[in-house]
Amino acid sequence: MSDRNMSPKITGELLRQLRQVMKNCKYVSEPLQAYIIPSGDAHQSEYIAPCDCRREFICGFNGSAGTAIVTEQYAAMWTDGRYFLQATQQMDNNWTLMKMGLKETPSQEDWLISVLPENSKVGVDPWIIAADQWKAMSKALTSAGHSLIAVQENLIDVVWVDRPQRPSTQLRTLGSDYTGMSWQDKITALRAKMTERKMSWFIATALDEIAWLFNLRGADIEYNPVFFAYTIVGIDTIRLFVDIKRLADPALREHLQLDTPSKPELHIQTFPYESVFAELQAICTALGHKDKVWICDKASCALTQVIPQAHRSTIPYTPLCLAKAVKNTTEIQGMKTAHIKDAVALCDLFAWLEKEIPKGTVTEISAADKAEELRSQQKHFVGLSFPTISSVGPNAAIIHYRPLPETNRTLTVNEVYLIDSGAQYIDGTTDVTRTVHFGTPSAYEKECFTYVLKGHIAVSAAVFPNGTKGHLLDSFARAALWESGLDYLHGTGHGVGCFLNVHEGPCGISYKTFADEPLEAGMIVSDEPGYYEDGAFGIRLENVVLVVPAKPKYNYRNRGSLTFEPLTLVPIQVKMMNTELLTQKERDWVNEYHRTCREVVGAELERQGRKEALEWLIRETQPIV
Amino acid sequence: MSDRNMSPKITGELLRQLRQVMKNCKYVSEPLQAYIIPSGDAHQSEYIAPCDCRREFICGFNGSAGTAIVTEQYAAMWTDGRYFLQATQQMDNNWTLMKMGLKETPSQEDWLISVLPENSKVGVDPWIIAADQWKAMSKALTSAGHSLIAVQENLIDVVWVDRPQRPSTQLRTLGSDYTGMSWQDKITALRAKMTERKMSWFIATALDEIAWLFNLRGADIEYNPVFFAYTIVGIDTIRLFVDIKRLADPALREHLQLDTPSKPELHIQTFPYESVFAELQAICTALGHKDKVWICDKASCALTQVIPQAHRSTIPYTPLCLAKAVKNTTEIQGMKTAHIKDAVALCDLFAWLEKEIPKGTVTEISAADKAEELRSQQKHFVGLSFPTISSVGPNAAIIHYRPLPETNRTLTVNEVYLIDSGAQYIDGTTDVTRTVHFGTPSAYEKECFTYVLKGHIAVSAAVFPNGTKGHLLDSFARAALWESGLDYLHGTGHGVGCFLNVHEGPCGISYKTFADEPLEAGMIVSDEPGYYEDGAFGIRLENVVLVVPAKPKYNYRNRGSLTFEPLTLVPIQVKMMNTELLTQKERDWVNEYHRTCREVVGAELERQGRKEALEWLIRETQPIV
Repeated sequence: MSDRNMSPKITGELLRQLRQVMKNCKYVSEPLQAYIIPSGDAHQSEYIAPCDCRREFICGFNGSAGTAIVTEQYAAMWTDGRYFLQATQQMDNNWTLMKMGLKETPSQEDWLISVLPENSKVGVDPWIIAADQWKAMSKALTSAGHSLIAVQENLIDVVWVDRPQRPSTQLRTLGSDYTGMSWQDKITALRAKMTERKMSWFIATALDEIAWLFNLRGADIEYNPVFFAYTIVGIDTIRLFVDIKRLADPALREHLQLDTPSKPELHIQTFPYESVFAELQAICTALGHKDKVWICDKASCALTQVIPQAHRSTIPYTPLCLAKAVKNTTEIQGMKTAHIKDAVALCDLFAWLEKEIPKGTVTEISAADKAEELRSQQKHFVGLSFPTISSVGPNAAIIHYRPLPETNRTLTVNEVYLIDSGAQYIDGTTDVTRTVHFGTPSAYEKECFTYVLKGHIAVSAAVFPNGTKGHLLDSFARAALWESGLDYLHGTGHGVGCFLNVHEGPCGISYKTFADEPLEAGMIVSDEPGYYEDGAFGIRLENVVLVVPAKPKYNYRNRGSLTFEPLTLVPIQVKMMNTELLTQKERDWVNEYHRTCREVVGAELERQGRKEALEWLIRETQPIV
Repeated sequence: MSDRNMSPKITGELLRQLRQVMKNCKYVSEPLQAYIIPSGDAHQSEYIAPCDCRREFICGFNGSAGTAIVTEQYAAMWTDGRYFLQATQQMDNNWTLMKMGLKETPSQEDWLISVLPENSKVGVDPWIIAADQWKAMSKALTSAGHSLIAVQENLIDVVWVDRPQRPSTQLRTLGSDYTGMSWQDKITALRAKMTERKMSWFIATALDEIAWLFNLRGADIEYNPVFFAYTIVGIDTIRLFVDIKRLADPALREHLQLDTPSKPELHIQTFPYESVFAELQAICTALGHKDKVWICDKASCALTQVIPQAHRSTIPYTPLCLAKAVKNTTEIQGMKTAHIKDAVALCDLFAWLEKEIPKGTVTEISAADKAEELRSQQKHFVGLSFPTISSVGPNAAIIHYRPLPETNRTLTVNEVYLIDSGAQYIDGTTDVTRTVHFGTPSAYEKECFTYVLKGHIAVSAAVFPNGTKGHLLDSFARAALWESGLDYLHGTGHGVGCFLNVHEGPCGISYKTFADEPLEAGMIVSDEPGYYEDGAFGIRLENVVLVVPAKPKYNYRNRGSLTFEPLTLVPIQVKMMNTELLTQKERDWVNEYHRTCREVVGAELERQGRKEALEWLIRETQPIV
């Protein structure tokens, strides 16, 4: 990921070249009247490698979400409200910003139909567009007399002369002491699901699913310990598509049993990353009458369309995604350990900030750097799990803020400070947000903080029946804010991987989706309500929480109940609370949470000899009344 | 609606006849291997007229939901958990009951594919099946090599020799003092929506939308004051399809300005009910290049498919449905008046029950009859709005219970009594549930009742931002039950019409849907959490509530806030409450609610000279501490 540029990219010449390529019969069988450049890679990753930042390359805008479309006359880029300002700054006047979510903004389809000459060809790279998006776009264009064309060679790559290489970092093997389950057992469980659903083949395209399946990690994408690969699992074959050079390491070969497979059906055949298309084609040519191929409905259009429709079975969440979401005992233990280490680093950070801020030398960037330094001192630290959001005063009201030299503010005793950060440790992934004041918060800041806290507790302490989907809990986080006319415009929680992506499916807590899978004991999600006062301050309070069985008084229809156990163990600043607004139950929750923080993190601080942090912890976890 | 039969219908001969008709070239161009008989009518009504009870006719089962399929060899009927027992009792052994919701039960599509010979033709009446259901069924059958055939003549009607006539009751006109808006203004508003969305035509097929549009009411379907009709609105034409005999009444002709239209574009052309198909065909033949026809996606397949796909624009909720849901000042006033009258009848009922029950002569049926008698004494009473659920002890645990001579229990001082009832008045529609005990409830019954009450209050008192969808409030109703491991397996609320259907879209409060429209001030919904202990007792607490603006302390992003105002004003039995489980806020809510009941309903009881009921009301609305 590149940093945020504040001056627009000059794109006139690039667009001229792209428009030439759009008509060049070396790349397209018929001239294109438009070319779509989505963000994203061939694996539909949330974070992408530099070589895949094609939309940024062509228009200059480098936010995480956006789609560019270039026609013979126009160039337009669609993004959402988080990025309107940034996109305006980063794009030159060859580009029109299409503000998604505003009523007057046309959809990509409607806009294309309004500007294209009759019977136009619209091109797109079928590897970058998901199968379901292709379908919707193709239908809209076709009904207006145009057609959507899959252009095999990416036309941005043609004009991108210094495009970076696809990363091929060293692979790390994880033993059962970290994963709790061998890849062989994961393959066996996957095949059981395939048999149950009468599937002959399963295609894995999501990078975190492949890393999880083989108990391997890479560093191909910043913050996400994954590597570029595909996998095709048959009932008695396993095909792994990956840069073959990466497989030279003897320990890795041993881990994957490449040379000495224990059983023939556990023999991994390795192929170059690029050969997945040809190999899947070969498999599909030889499909029997009843053979079914299982693939995620968010997989690339290119791979999906190789599978003949009669043999294709698409699903919103793959069996790997579902299995990965429910953490086993070893993973849970690892996540707990990681969160204790992470809490040690944060206690250290807050003790340090308290001391340093009055000197006027701490900035958003230096605080973030300090947090990273302290985390890196912890055992098994690998890197951050996402770019640290370190934000003071009005900057914290920008939900996806990331400090840059041009925006960097100094931490003072006069403004609220919000830090949302996390790390990758070999034993687990963390993600925590705390909002603190180093002087005296205003009554209004305290009031808003307390509503957010009430929402956080309402979710964390909720008891709900087995089978409940996370989106049904979202309103609990908002009720206290709503009662006072306040709200926040983001979801309340996301799934968290175990030494994997900090955002993962299939569960979450959000009003936005209805397609999440029910919460199950062993799933791990974040609980992060907030409140943002534009131009003034931002508040967010985030714990990572584990879904655990609950034992309420009754057990209706033997369904069983669930609740959450916080994995994050960092004190919540009492100074920011208006404790009069808390009920007795809420006060009890705060005291019980702080007792656990003191006990568990205190012991580790003691063991690590971090005295100042320990003193800070003890002071910050005094019971409230 | 016919009553519930407890002995199975003998269907052997009927099925033999139907199977002959399925091969008779007088009715089908090619022999059918299967025929689908959905429940429902050509307007996708929830309640249907006797002439439309075709699924009941062929299999004997008369529950509100179920689909029968007859093949050459088999006859199967799908229904859900509410009706397993009833369906078993009502169907003979020619029929297989397909229990929906159980894992082992195949879908209709899967079952058909498993039993049909290759290349089969499956027939269905395209008027009874909705366009979206047709699409799904057709796709599944086609992909398995079969085909779905629209059979124009209903094959059940062919074998149903004594099928009742379609009702054609007298139409009632409603003036502006009841509707608050002339039908002319409603047409003008509809056309404004059509123009905004660039629609040339709008097809109305839902009976309540047509009744609302023209400010007319009928009595064609029990409990629902609607009449069989279709309407096609163009930019300067109005076509009404209805039994022409109904239009003889001079007052009605005057209301509709049939003979003296004020403006040409408000001239209603009337056509026979049956001619809608031919007329729509004629319109579609003459469509211009850009003309679009607007129709609900739940309209019948027959009408939908007349519209060429390129000109068809389907929507989940029509502009009439959306406009009807937001009640105007006159309608709100009417609903309030109706609810006061309804409360008078219920206070009278409860006072009477208290006196009569100790005599041992009151049964579920006689209590329901008494409730109807008392309601019918109120001004502008038209009839019930749904069959009264009057249920004692274990019967109340059956959510859709309706007392029958075979199940009828006597009300005593030993069991909980649940009554869910409502009426149609010319000024409004009511729907109220109260759960009471005439002796001493057990601690457990009180505990459960109090959780339900807490849920009811949590929804009723909720403050939420403009734009919030009702399904986001559903969990509020469950939180107290969930905390104790309890729950109820139905939604929390439905939209309520104004002297129209007691269930209407597009809003509601349920975990089951994500497709509801946001709540708006002026919408009216029910708030009815419950708890059901199988074999023991049932609890439900239902008020009809009006969405009103709220004025919380802050106003985030000027979005504005909403809350609910109860329209139902019937005391909630304090004897059933464990007040220790209530928070101070909840106790305040109860006292404030009871104060309003006493003030508003008390004045009307006084005016009507209903002394015993007034005494009862005053006693039942004493403040709790």
